[in-house]
Parts: sequence; structure tokens; C-alpha cells
Amino acid sequence: MEKGTMVIGQSGGPTAVINQSLVGAILAAREQETITGILGARHGIAGIMAEDFIDLTTQSLAQLEQVAATSAAALGSVRLKPGKAECARVFEVFRKHGVRYLFYIGGNDSAETANIINQISADAGYDLRTVHIPKTIDNDLRVTDHCPGFASAARFVALAFMGDDRDNYALSGVKINVVMGRHAGFLTAAAALARQGEEDGPHLIYLPERVFDVAKFQADVKRVYRQLGRCVIAVSEGVSDADGNPIASTGEHDSHGNVQLSGTGALGDKLAALVKAAFGDEVVRVRADTFGYLQRSYPTIVSAIDVREAREVGAFGVQHAVSGGSGSVAIRRTSNTPYASEYFMTPLTSVARDTTSMRDEWINAEGNDITPAWLDYARPLVGDLPVIGRL
Amino acid sequence: MEKGTMVIGQSGGPTAVINQSLVGAILAAREQETITGILGARHGIAGIMAEDFIDLTTQSLAQLEQVAATSAAALGSVRLKPGKAECARVFEVFRKHGVRYLFYIGGNDSAETANIINQISADAGYDLRTVHIPKTIDNDLRVTDHCPGFASAARFVALAFMGDDRDNYALSGVKINVVMGRHAGFLTAAAALARQGEEDGPHLIYLPERVFDVAKFQADVKRVYRQLGRCVIAVSEGVSDADGNPIASTGEHDSHGNVQLSGTGALGDKLAALVKAAFGDEVVRVRADTFGYLQRSYPTIVSAIDVREAREVGAFGVQHAVSGGSGSVAIRRTSNTPYASEYFMTPLTSVARDTTSMRDEWINAEGNDITPAWLDYARPLVGDLPVIGRL
Repeated sequence: MEKGTMVIGQSGGPTAVINQSLVGAILAAREQETITGILGARHGIAGIMAEDFIDLTTQSLAQLEQVAATSAAALGSVRLKPGKAECARVFEVFRKHGVRYLFYIGGNDSAETANIINQISADAGYDLRTVHIPKTIDNDLRVTDHCPGFASAARFVALAFMGDDRDNYALSGVKINVVMGRHAGFLTAAAALARQGEEDGPHLIYLPERVFDVAKFQADVKRVYRQLGRCVIAVSEGVSDADGNPIASTGEHDSHGNVQLSGTGALGDKLAALVKAAFGDEVVRVRADTFGYLQRSYPTIVSAIDVREAREVGAFGVQHAVSGGSGSVAIRRTSNTPYASEYFMTPLTSVARDTTSMRDEWINAEGNDITPAWLDYARPLVGDLPVIGRL
Repeated sequence: MEKGTMVIGQSGGPTAVINQSLVGAILAAREQETITGILGARHGIAGIMAEDFIDLTTQSLAQLEQVAATSAAALGSVRLKPGKAECARVFEVFRKHGVRYLFYIGGNDSAETANIINQISADAGYDLRTVHIPKTIDNDLRVTDHCPGFASAARFVALAFMGDDRDNYALSGVKINVVMGRHAGFLTAAAALARQGEEDGPHLIYLPERVFDVAKFQADVKRVYRQLGRCVIAVSEGVSDADGNPIASTGEHDSHGNVQLSGTGALGDKLAALVKAAFGDEVVRVRADTFGYLQRSYPTIVSAIDVREAREVGAFGVQHAVSGGSGSVAIRRTSNTPYASEYFMTPLTSVARDTTSMRDEWINAEGNDITPAWLDYARPLVGDLPVIGRL
């Protein structure tokens, strides 16, 4: 393998541990003789095209550890799907800087970007090793058991529901919480980890994997409210009707064609209105919160396993690029109790573009809750939660 | 002082440390000879009227410590302003159960409830000692330096802005975060604690203490965006126009006459639309989050000082009731560096009903930010925050 410079970038929505992967890769790269320079691209591929790089060979370990513990993408992120012109520009820059390694930290869209660049480099006979380092709170990448970033976001959501359920217990009424997740309900399903007692919320969980039927939703809420005098609901931002239309959306799209669902309270407010309508003249306290970007960037709320794995997938990717070649890093769970995992490489094409979603066995028959099997999957990742005190 | 039973209740919006006050009062009461029984009223005054009590003399210390560490009101809360009929019923219950002490944990509305009951008991010649134990994330009680519950909510808000500002740095655009606070901007102002570097957000802070001028807001956002390529904004849910009308509201009121502002994304979405309109045809990424109930009930995010003081005001209130009489517990800051405080009593009437708000010296002349004096006040309460790592 020819010696050369590496470029590393971060792409897509930030997470609480994405900088762990960055630092894991930097530290591993500093130990590789064949990697002669480490360039951080500001705002992912946009930074590569603009030659907007940071030299990552000089920072102290203390500084890097501080970066690793800081949420969101320290290099800056981007949502840009490169076309032919962009890729031509990327190669111009790579040739100019003697770049032989590209590490791209992100989700399925980022894997697709990495894959496109990798294929064009192969076609051009340019020796480039491209490694996709997985990251997404959505947990929707194929092949891997789970995605770095998910467990910390899931922990944020589980704790949020734990506190909010106590709040709802104290003041009663109906509370709707909208959770991130465009097509996959993993993060919304993590709300179930908040339950410790039989009457604890969330009492209903709606995932984008199932059709959202308004009349069924209204009947579900009324039933729980009649039984408990209150009802806490977890709803994925991506819930859609039988025709696949989101229940609420601003109509905005990014360059990957994704509809904007986050950064607005529209769905929560719409669902609150539907619940009020269901109760007719009966006065019921109905509130809706949209957890929003806090889920992916809230500092200090992290899963210990997630922190460790995010760091290690970065290092593993670098080691594999030097000794092996291109691909995407994936996680295999080797044991559930106690939890243990290992890393392996999977082809870029196996992760790029298409995503996965919640398994059928994790969703109840009615489509308004999860199953115990889901808890078995999610609990070890999220880690121990505080015990709820009661009188 | 006659021996007798005490009743304790929680009222108004929950906080992360309200159960510390409850447990502080219970443990102190168990040491008092003149307090012969401890009844917890479920859902505050509603529970008193319904004789819905929990015996609080039997729980183990371990159980009580678990309750203390759990957010939201463990006894259940209520938003109910008692009229004459309710008060007559309260006395019937108090006489029946030999109640000589009432402890009511809450904000200004709860202090008013305590004050009404106290005055009627005095008029009736019934020997009752009524102590209001302060609690509110709004920090808007008069007399006291600050309110238990505020510092933990402020810490949640500061950390949220810290992470969200990194998120906005990574993906740029305009981000609006709506923070709780009907008439007082304390909690919104706490967002400023997130700043560590010169360009860190929040870049603009709008408080209900100043008229919210839409044109000025739009101009402010454009100016910051032109300068930094991004803009993070903290807005209080209570911001109102020159006529005192909230910029957005659902029109719903509680029995204290308070307008419902929380539990909806309406204000955030309205402000996002105003920002988009300000940029006209220019495509700018604009997002709005409403932090909602997480601010007051999120588990594990607490200020150490808040935890300690919330516990101690509960104990202090009980000790004063036995040795002194009725009143509301207040906090006096005796030193800022290092932080130190002491407790004292103030008449119920000095805290009931009317609230306070941000001092003029804490708000900048333009009305779109705080001053360094505010940081001096707030920082010791919230405690040390993690250092942001940067490349």
C-alpha cells in the first residue's frame, strides 16, 4: 500500500458520541506508518471540495479527549449528496493533497456518498481506501447490530419519558411526546425502557413501521385515559397514514430527498388536537412536546457502551483501511448478558442508501406498543437507569 | 403549642427536586415531638378535601431517599385555587384529623392557597400553623434570592443550549429554542450559561420582561446570521407584544387564570415562520424546538446546590412551624464566591400571588440579551458545566 494522507469527515445529523469516532480514528491513524497526514474536512464533503481542512496531527491528547466528550460534529457536518461534478472536484483535491484514505462518519446517506467516491476512484484506477464509520441515532443502518449514537439518544429518550411520566402522574391528563425517527421507530421504541411499574408510561407507542390510524389512536388514548386517568404517548415523528403520507410535515426536503420532520411542533400539536376532539365536550388536559434536537446533542447523557463502541469503530475503521481496504464498520453482538460485541467490515454497498427498521417481533400485534423482545435488545445498550422512587 | 398531625402537599408544576423538599420536611417532622402524625395529601388541596392521604410515618429512609431523587411530585400535584367552599371543607377535614400543621410546597399560587387557608384558620380561631415551602423552576417568587427547582431546570436549559449550539455549529442555519417562563425570563436567561467561546450561542435571548417586537427580532436574527452564518436563539414562552398579548397561545387557562403556553410548539413554529419570511427568497435552514416539560422533570440533571437547598427548605419549614409559626421559607445568599446561603421566614402575604421577574440590570439595553451581572447571579446556582472541546 502506497503511503499517503487521510481525510476524515463527519456527515448528517450529529450525535452525542460522533466525536468519539472522530478521535478514535485520529488516534489510530497517528499510529499508522502508511498514513502520513491527517486532514479533517470541515462540513464533510463540502469541506473537501473547498479544501477547508484542519491538520489533525498536532492536537494534544487532552484536547482530543475534550473533543471526544463534546456532542455534535466537531468538524462540522453537512447534508449533501455529491453528483458527478462534486466527485470530480473531490478527486482533484485528493490528488493534489496525496490523499489515499477517506474516512466518512455518518449514516446511510454518508455511506452512499462514501460508496460513490469509492466506485469512481476504482473506475479511475486511483488508489483510495474509503471507510464508512457508522453513526446515527436512528439506528437504521443495515448489517450492523446497532449504530453508534443510537444508545446515547435512546438513553436520553428513556430518561425523558421516565421524568415526564412522573410529571404526568403528578398532574394527570394526556401527554404526547414526539420522538425523532423518520422511517425507523428504534428511538421511539426506546421510550419503553422508562417503564418500571405496571402503570408507568409510555402507555402507547406508535412507530413509523405501522400505519398510523387516527381513529384507532383516538380510541387507544381514550381507553387508557378511562383506565388510569392519564395517558403518556410516544409517537415517532415519521408516523404516516395508509397512503404513506406523514401525519404532519412542513413540506421541506434536503438534498437526499428526506422530508423535514424535526425542528417543528406541528405533529405534536396536530395529535393534541385530535385527542381533544376525541374527548368532545369533556375537558381533558392535553399537552404535546416534541423532543427535537436535544435527543441527538444533549451533553452528558450518554450510554457507556455507546461511548466505548463509538470510539472503537473509529479506530477499527482506520486499522482495516491500512491492512484491508474499503468498507463500512459494523458491530456484532456476541453476548447479551453480559453484553459483549466485536467489529467487522461489510461492503459499502451493503450499508449505503437503503435502511432497515424495527423487526416485526419487536412490535406488538395491535401496533401500539413494543414487545419484551425489544427490551431485551435495547436494555443492554442503554445501560442501567435510575430507580423511580414512590410513596 | 398543641400537639397535632401535620398535612403536607405539593402543588403547581413539578420540578426535579420538589421531592427533596418533601423528604426534608418528612424527616424533620419525624424528629418533632409536637408533630404526632404525618399525612401526605395526594394532589395537594384536592387530596385534603377528599381525605386522600398517605401515612408518611412508616417509610424507610432508603425508600424516602429514592423518592427524593425522583423528579416530579411524588404525592401528585394540582392546580386548584380554593374558594370559600373548598376552605370550609379543608377545615372540616383538619378538625377531624387533628391537623395543626400544614406544609404546602409550591410557587406563588400555592403560597396564595396557603395564605387563604391560614387567614381563615386565624379568623376561626383554629390553631393552625401554615408554612409555604418554595418551589418553582420559574424562579419568580418574591423575597427569596432564588427558588428551589430553578437551578436544576436552569442547568437542564444551559446544557441543552450547549449541545444544541454545537449541533447548530455543525449544520448551521437558524435555531429557535422556546424555554418555559410565563412572566419571568430567569429560565430563558439561563441559556446564556452555555456560552464558553465568543461565537457560542445563544446569540440572542428574548425575555418576557421586554416587549417582543417582531421587526426587531427579524432584524436581529438576520444580522447575526450574516455575521456568523448561523444563529441560535433563546425565547421565553411568555414573550408578548406591546399590548401584552402573547405572541402565541392556545387560549387555554387554568383556575388561577394562567394562560397555557407550554405543551405546544405553536410559538416556536410561529417564530420560525417569521424568520423564514425575513429572509424572503433566500433559502435558510430554520428550525424551532420547544423544550417543554423536560425542563422541569428530566431525571439526573440537577444542580448540587439545588438538591441540598430543596432538602433544607423542607426541614427548615418544619422546624420553624414548631418553634415559630406560619410563613414562607426564603433563601438569603450570604456569599457568592464561594457560594453560601441561609434560610429565613417571610410572611405568606409577601410571597403569595404576585411574582417578581428579571432585574433591569440583568437585561441588556437592546432587550435581546442578558448582562454579565446575570451570569454572576446564576452561575454559582447552576454549578460547573462541562468544557466544550473544539478543533
